[in-house]
Amino acid sequence: MTGAETNMRLKLPIICFILEIILIILFGVLVQYDYEVDAREWHNKLNPGNKSHSEHNGHPESNSHSESKVHSNYDNDFYYRYPSFQDVHVMIFIGFGFLMTFLQRYGFSSVGFNFLIAAFSLQWATLMQGFFHGMHGGKIHIGVESMINADFCTGAVLISFGAVLGKTSPVQLLVMAIFEVTLFSVNEFILLTVLGAKDAGGSMTIHTFGAYFGLMVTRILYRPNLDKSKHKNCSVYHSDLFAMIGTIYLWMFWPSFNSAVTAHGDDQHRTALNTYYSLAACTLSTYGMSALTAHDGKLDMVHIQNAALAGGVAAGTAGEMMLTPVGSMIVGFLAGIISVLGYKYLSPILEEKLKVQDTCGVHNLHGMPGVLGAIVGAVTAAVATTDIYGKGMEDVFPDVAKGNITASYQGVRQAISLAVTLGMALVGGLIVGFLLKLPIYGAPPDTICFEDNIYWEVPGDEEEDHQDKATVRMTETERLNA
Amino acid sequence: MTGAETNMRLKLPIICFILEIILIILFGVLVQYDYEVDAREWHNKLNPGNKSHSEHNGHPESNSHSESKVHSNYDNDFYYRYPSFQDVHVMIFIGFGFLMTFLQRYGFSSVGFNFLIAAFSLQWATLMQGFFHGMHGGKIHIGVESMINADFCTGAVLISFGAVLGKTSPVQLLVMAIFEVTLFSVNEFILLTVLGAKDAGGSMTIHTFGAYFGLMVTRILYRPNLDKSKHKNCSVYHSDLFAMIGTIYLWMFWPSFNSAVTAHGDDQHRTALNTYYSLAACTLSTYGMSALTAHDGKLDMVHIQNAALAGGVAAGTAGEMMLTPVGSMIVGFLAGIISVLGYKYLSPILEEKLKVQDTCGVHNLHGMPGVLGAIVGAVTAAVATTDIYGKGMEDVFPDVAKGNITASYQGVRQAISLAVTLGMALVGGLIVGFLLKLPIYGAPPDTICFEDNIYWEVPGDEEEDHQDKATVRMTETERLNA
Amino acid sequence: MTGAETNMRLKLPIICFILEIILIILFGVLVQYDYEVDAREWHNKLNPGNKSHSEHNGHPESNSHSESKVHSNYDNDFYYRYPSFQDVHVMIFIGFGFLMTFLQRYGFSSVGFNFLIAAFSLQWATLMQGFFHGMHGGKIHIGVESMINADFCTGAVLISFGAVLGKTSPVQLLVMAIFEVTLFSVNEFILLTVLGAKDAGGSMTIHTFGAYFGLMVTRILYRPNLDKSKHKNCSVYHSDLFAMIGTIYLWMFWPSFNSAVTAHGDDQHRTALNTYYSLAACTLSTYGMSALTAHDGKLDMVHIQNAALAGGVAAGTAGEMMLTPVGSMIVGFLAGIISVLGYKYLSPILEEKLKVQDTCGVHNLHGMPGVLGAIVGAVTAAVATTDIYGKGMEDVFPDVAKGNITASYQGVRQAISLAVTLGMALVGGLIVGFLLKLPIYGAPPDTICFEDNIYWEVPGDEEEDHQDKATVRMTETERLNA
Repeated sequence: MTGAETNMRLKLPIICFILEIILIILFGVLVQYDYEVDAREWHNKLNPGNKSHSEHNGHPESNSHSESKVHSNYDNDFYYRYPSFQDVHVMIFIGFGFLMTFLQRYGFSSVGFNFLIAAFSLQWATLMQGFFHGMHGGKIHIGVESMINADFCTGAVLISFGAVLGKTSPVQLLVMAIFEVTLFSVNEFILLTVLGAKDAGGSMTIHTFGAYFGLMVTRILYRPNLDKSKHKNCSVYHSDLFAMIGTIYLWMFWPSFNSAVTAHGDDQHRTALNTYYSLAACTLSTYGMSALTAHDGKLDMVHIQNAALAGGVAAGTAGEMMLTPVGSMIVGFLAGIISVLGYKYLSPILEEKLKVQDTCGVHNLHGMPGVLGAIVGAVTAAVATTDIYGKGMEDVFPDVAKGNITASYQGVRQAISLAVTLGMALVGGLIVGFLLKLPIYGAPPDTICFEDNIYWEVPGDEEEDHQDKATVRMTETERLNA
Repeated sequence: MTGAETNMRLKLPIICFILEIILIILFGVLVQYDYEVDAREWHNKLNPGNKSHSEHNGHPESNSHSESKVHSNYDNDFYYRYPSFQDVHVMIFIGFGFLMTFLQRYGFSSVGFNFLIAAFSLQWATLMQGFFHGMHGGKIHIGVESMINADFCTGAVLISFGAVLGKTSPVQLLVMAIFEVTLFSVNEFILLTVLGAKDAGGSMTIHTFGAYFGLMVTRILYRPNLDKSKHKNCSVYHSDLFAMIGTIYLWMFWPSFNSAVTAHGDDQHRTALNTYYSLAACTLSTYGMSALTAHDGKLDMVHIQNAALAGGVAAGTAGEMMLTPVGSMIVGFLAGIISVLGYKYLSPILEEKLKVQDTCGVHNLHGMPGVLGAIVGAVTAAVATTDIYGKGMEDVFPDVAKGNITASYQGVRQAISLAVTLGMALVGGLIVGFLLKLPIYGAPPDTICFEDNIYWEVPGDEEEDHQDKATVRMTETERLNA
Repeated sequence: MTGAETNMRLKLPIICFILEIILIILFGVLVQYDYEVDAREWHNKLNPGNKSHSEHNGHPESNSHSESKVHSNYDNDFYYRYPSFQDVHVMIFIGFGFLMTFLQRYGFSSVGFNFLIAAFSLQWATLMQGFFHGMHGGKIHIGVESMINADFCTGAVLISFGAVLGKTSPVQLLVMAIFEVTLFSVNEFILLTVLGAKDAGGSMTIHTFGAYFGLMVTRILYRPNLDKSKHKNCSVYHSDLFAMIGTIYLWMFWPSFNSAVTAHGDDQHRTALNTYYSLAACTLSTYGMSALTAHDGKLDMVHIQNAALAGGVAAGTAGEMMLTPVGSMIVGFLAGIISVLGYKYLSPILEEKLKVQDTCGVHNLHGMPGVLGAIVGAVTAAVATTDIYGKGMEDVFPDVAKGNITASYQGVRQAISLAVTLGMALVGGLIVGFLLKLPIYGAPPDTICFEDNIYWEVPGDEEEDHQDKATVRMTETERLNA
């Protein structure tokens, strides 16, 4: 069933080992703990009076309150961010992984390749993002915030994975991840550092970028005969339930995602709250639209699994701003409507007219809602006033607070950032798409896309030789005879 | 298969859109960020010396330690409560949602309607609860604590959903939620504010209320011919495993649930610990009772999935009190026994004699253990002494600490609260039940209850026209031919 | 199908009730809240100026900063450790529970017995660990740290459960847990208190101990005719997906596991970060090795489900040390390679030559990586210098910091600890194995191992009388006729 060209026996080990060894060498040369992770550096700043209660023997050095700023263990960013980090981590590995298990015979690959490319991407992203904005004296300093950022970058790669799901080999996906992580970091650097845009939850950097990059890749990898695998490009009952595990985890933890790297205090609090209400409103518009667009009023699992999440995407830029609860709800409400309409009417057009075979519909979940989120962010930034933000302006729009620019100009920055992101994603996807078209990665033939069997030992294979469910039948017969 | 009267094409969109638009309008008029979420207000109170380390440019205002109470970012309630909030959120969406997937052909509806009515209820609860105890100058102030409370109120609605599971349309469920959330908020206001009762984990407000409300609704919606759907009102192997995901999440995070809105410090710590031991003891009594009551000593998944959780319910009121570890274990131990006995002996009687068709057995998981929890809470309150609580009395029983009332009288308050809750739930359920009996909501006929197909596109439907598993078979045949 | 000797009707209730009643009595006599959980004691130390903002009425007592050390609610260890505790809790109940659902017909038992023995073990471990290192004036003081430690001890029991999975009755497992928890606590006391070793994530105390104890038990319980159940000792498609839920949760939360009880501040931060990178590197080497060792280059789910976790095990001792990011990655990389090689080549040898029937391959996931972790810990300890650790040495190696011993000697302590652990585990497993061999526990016969049906009501049993899947077929027929 599996031809030699898709055999991963050498291809996959070679790329995995080479990549990991390169990562290890680069980490050895470039990467250090930041001062909150390093034993010596943290303890140099620590106020012994506030040490953990399990350590009673005081330090001898004098320490007067007026002399210098002292730290307690609680000032360690770990306690501000680690719970959010773990929520983001669940979204990346369980959320994205299981969301894509909806295909009837592609669950191993969905969860398993998600796992592989995420584990690679987060290491590579540590280097790339560190290179662009974490260098201190020639070294990349890492800690919980860089871990969250690495997970964020990984999220963009997984969005692109959704566009090409079922049609690529793991080697191809790793190659895509190498380039996408790099380009993501460049784009992120341009947006956040050069342009001074705000995008805490990544409507632009993560969702818009990941979606349009992936859509362009899948366009270049267009398979005219993909309908030969059409019968496998759908769900069965239990695969839809597995996918709902992914959906619900993404939905629940999106408030943590958007607030994970905002400033401490009111900013994290506000971002989580805005996202929570955006998602709730989005869920209602998704259910309404799903029933409305069905010919018999029946809800479509594809909409529920995906469009109900669009409210989180669309709150990714403006979530940390003073969007107000009602503003968040309106954004979520619109995102759900747009997303369902996209699945129902736009995706078939994209596939037929533009030859974009978008397996998971990332255009509807991440693309359009991401653009919506970017626009909402630009508008919300443009109308910011000191009357509304008070001294909190400094956290959200530091350049506006310092009087360097006006709020309207911050809005312009946000809009330019969206344009840059779209450009980078499309051009990047174009180039990487052609690179991935090379016939050296062991991509599956058109007839056996959306099928685990090509890259995985599927239960029953070896013992039975013909097909997969046979084992179950056999053991049932045996059970009867037993 | 699906008649016109159950068609949701117009009914569901209309109610979803109308409800969400009403919510948006009311939020626009009434809801504001509280001072810990609002940029201006939080920064007005913030001590610049304690600002997040990523913000170095200090504020100019003078700030002496003796002059006024200053805040650091850590004082933001977000850091005290957000991890608990996320655990509660998982219980509401994954816990309740998957717990109900035990039915063989009702997984889409269990997770999906759970998702829909929870997303609606948490928005509506924000308004209703805010109206009763969050108004400040005509505005409802919201933050992480109100988000937890909204999730709590949603929990009660989902408990009632468990009683009517499989026999209602999504429109009916939304209508039920509208009224139940309202009544929940009234009851909660009476208990916590008027009567001064304590019920941090909601043995009364959430579990007793949700259960008896739902039981009364299902009594009014009694279907004499429900046995026509009997063959679908049971589990299959994998549906029981999906349900165990729900069970285990509820079990693990119940300590967070009960402690989510207690006072900071020892109170949250103690409540989590008490709940942890109550649940552990409950699990052992559940396994023992399940084997003991089976004719062949085999464990029953229904008991494990449900009764093992009764220890969390029963610790909902007294968990924050000085219940002691051993007290918690005794409570959990008894709750497990009562709950299994309820499933084994009481539920069949309720159905036959009282015509209460309680699909999930919420009487055994939430009803009786909730009442037990209320009684334990009343007794524990009545025996509280300053010798035991010290200055901590102020957190747990503020009126007793101030000398306004005696501990025994606090116990009486607790007992009255239970009675009020039972009355509100039963009368409310009666009225709402009759309202839901109106033949306008598209409820399923008796012959196709417990079946996703009536409200959901189930995989295989369109292509095959006859029945669901056929798709799988077809693709297997194709796989053989391939 | 189920004979009288495996009937649990009396055996299981008797042991469950006796054990829980003993636990309740011992908790009543011995266990108290620690001062951070107890209302009176915590409030005695609390600084009223820092109280939760929801409590406005100040305490009358004078409170000058210079007079005594005061606490704010944030100093309560609950806020440092509870999020980690919940992550550990998820690993114990979801992680271990679902990891073992890979067997086609043993999902109820995997999740269900995991649940039962964990709920028992955590209570028993509270007592045993408290007896050895939590006694204060004749009482065991408990709080969030003891809850984490109890979960850790439970983890060791669940590892041993993995070795005997499918071949034991629940009564047998509870008896094993009684002895293993006791022995675990003795070994932990010797290592951490007597020998002064460091092992925050339990490479030795949890993984090495749990694995070799379990391996010895399964050796003693050797079943020469186990091949009669061979057809059930394998996975089906969806059971492998359920198992991946367990895998991914273990993988994601392992940073919390290793850092849960380290010192506050940089120590928790560093441990989490080291574990994160160790696991990421391990995942790449696992995928590479899995494809490399397969005859057709196809990935093996057994490797992905298990070996990808070895990086967490191997970072269990050195994770809190200054292992550096690159050091962590090298350790994880090696752990993945060793683990896959173990599954592929060593496990068959162990079974054939040494008669060790290790159902889950715990030797490859916990045994060898645990030993690797212990060695890495010993080496990392031996090379510790004040230049690297600064004042942080006190947290990680207090005896070295005080000048009592040299770093090299700390390394020797670590190595001795590994030897002690191996000895305790093997001798303990030997004795307990023989005890479990007694024919009184209702163990399954060789022909029906790896089968839920023997201890669980499996859907379809009662109504159908022959076999399990029949129900589904029947209802499909009915659906057609309906």
